[in-house]
Amino acid sequence: MTPVFELEGWSRTRLAQVEQALDRWVTADAPYGLDHGAPQELVEAMRYAVLDGGKRLRPLLVLAAHEAVDSSKSDAASAEAAVRAACAVELIHAYSLVHDDMPCMDNDILRRGKPTVHVQFGEASALLAGDALQALAFELLTPLDGSVPAVTQARLCALLARAAGSAGMAGGQAIDLASVGQPLTERQLREMHELKTGALLQGSVVMGAHCGAPDAQALSALESYGAAIGLAFQVVDDILDVTADSATLGKTAGKDAHNDKPTYVSLLGLEESQNYAQQLLTKALAALDSSGLAQTQALRALADMVVNRTS
Amino acid sequence: MTPVFELEGWSRTRLAQVEQALDRWVTADAPYGLDHGAPQELVEAMRYAVLDGGKRLRPLLVLAAHEAVDSSKSDAASAEAAVRAACAVELIHAYSLVHDDMPCMDNDILRRGKPTVHVQFGEASALLAGDALQALAFELLTPLDGSVPAVTQARLCALLARAAGSAGMAGGQAIDLASVGQPLTERQLREMHELKTGALLQGSVVMGAHCGAPDAQALSALESYGAAIGLAFQVVDDILDVTADSATLGKTAGKDAHNDKPTYVSLLGLEESQNYAQQLLTKALAALDSSGLAQTQALRALADMVVNRTS
Repeated sequence: MTPVFELEGWSRTRLAQVEQALDRWVTADAPYGLDHGAPQELVEAMRYAVLDGGKRLRPLLVLAAHEAVDSSKSDAASAEAAVRAACAVELIHAYSLVHDDMPCMDNDILRRGKPTVHVQFGEASALLAGDALQALAFELLTPLDGSVPAVTQARLCALLARAAGSAGMAGGQAIDLASVGQPLTERQLREMHELKTGALLQGSVVMGAHCGAPDAQALSALESYGAAIGLAFQVVDDILDVTADSATLGKTAGKDAHNDKPTYVSLLGLEESQNYAQQLLTKALAALDSSGLAQTQALRALADMVVNRTS
Repeated sequence: MTPVFELEGWSRTRLAQVEQALDRWVTADAPYGLDHGAPQELVEAMRYAVLDGGKRLRPLLVLAAHEAVDSSKSDAASAEAAVRAACAVELIHAYSLVHDDMPCMDNDILRRGKPTVHVQFGEASALLAGDALQALAFELLTPLDGSVPAVTQARLCALLARAAGSAGMAGGQAIDLASVGQPLTERQLREMHELKTGALLQGSVVMGAHCGAPDAQALSALESYGAAIGLAFQVVDDILDVTADSATLGKTAGKDAHNDKPTYVSLLGLEESQNYAQQLLTKALAALDSSGLAQTQALRALADMVVNRTS
């Protein structure tokens, strides 16, 4: 009998490691021994945006994919790369939220119950903090001390840049911006979400894999897994927007419908959307079955969490 | 007798190469075969921000430093890395201008005689275009086709991330933001400019060098050269802000004084600022003398241009 995998216990130690690493790398130390206070304030805005918040789904996907590929966990360079990649994807996610919340975008004043960065620090500081967080993500991926092999550094930067850029997250946000009040086909909606949310979630999985040495079969399977849960994440988001209340979500429920944004629920209906999310879960798990990898319990549990979460 | 070096002729062929490469890499092709129009609009905003504008000083510094280190120009991978690095630093510069011009920062409506990106495309698109340009810079540095060695890719990403981030350009902008109306010491003013403008100019020089295989002596000399011209660039900017008229500058003259921003001229006076700029030029040229490099004519001419320019 397969031993029961406990996601909560598995996550706890990984989350502690990620929080500690983020706390260390998004540093309040003034660079270059500056005695002027402003970079300190910039770093404070960056820390405010990153620390002590969020589910850290993307870092957990990086670490789970890395452990699936490098199950012996014997390689220090590979483990170092994985924790750096885990933090880097979270920094990209965090910067996107800071910029998304700004008045010219979604104009949100609260996130996770706290004032958003531009409310707390001003718009200009929020803009700069987001910009600096994106740069810091690539800084984390390229340590100068030789702790991560150059070939891994280069591959991780390549993957992250593409997941974050105009053919990834930023591109998806641009479609989202242009699609408010527009009727979309299911294909257009899927393409928007594949870029806006899916690219970085899939990127997290693939980056985690590349911290080890995945074979072609495993890599292809993990790409399919990442694509399926990336899309499922958004379908479930759309479902929760109509079924959960604001207190449970930690953000305003019903907001998409209110903003006249196209969603899976508005396009497919609630029941069909729920079926679709389950199909994507099945697809993600089937991809893992075909991966040739032995230790995929964490990836399975994370996929289940993405689809069956209630907030 | 040393043959006279003609910067204009040297620059012309390099600029043509950079413009062509930017035109090819900041592409209007919709990614992933999307049939929805928005990423197209995002890419249009990115192209508008990047193409057909500016002196391209940073790309020229990359290429000049690369040619100084790799004077035989026999290595195709090294040349490919250099043109990619040249475009990457320009994308970072371009994104910083897009975000700088936004209403929450400098609120500029004209740049190089054209409406700024947020005026032309809206604030949200300007924000996303800047974000996507930063990601694209790292994408250019990490081609997947093996045309640039992984060790070079990793080093270039490391240098660019640090030059652009909170200990570089973004950090300098944060100090600038906080320093309006504040009295600064010369040291504080220098630190601000070392980060805000100097880090990316120096980074351009050092990245160009790393496209080849610089020895320690050359690298150290090029770092000093880059630091000197990086600071000189800003000192001259401050001088031109009071001595040139708006038509010559292509931007509003006297703006810094009007905005109550600390400048070298306000701190040292005009004559002393001019002396300081010449000292920095001397320092930059002396660094090249100590570099052990034979072909430094382009770097010398660029230093002279930075200090003795009239716009």
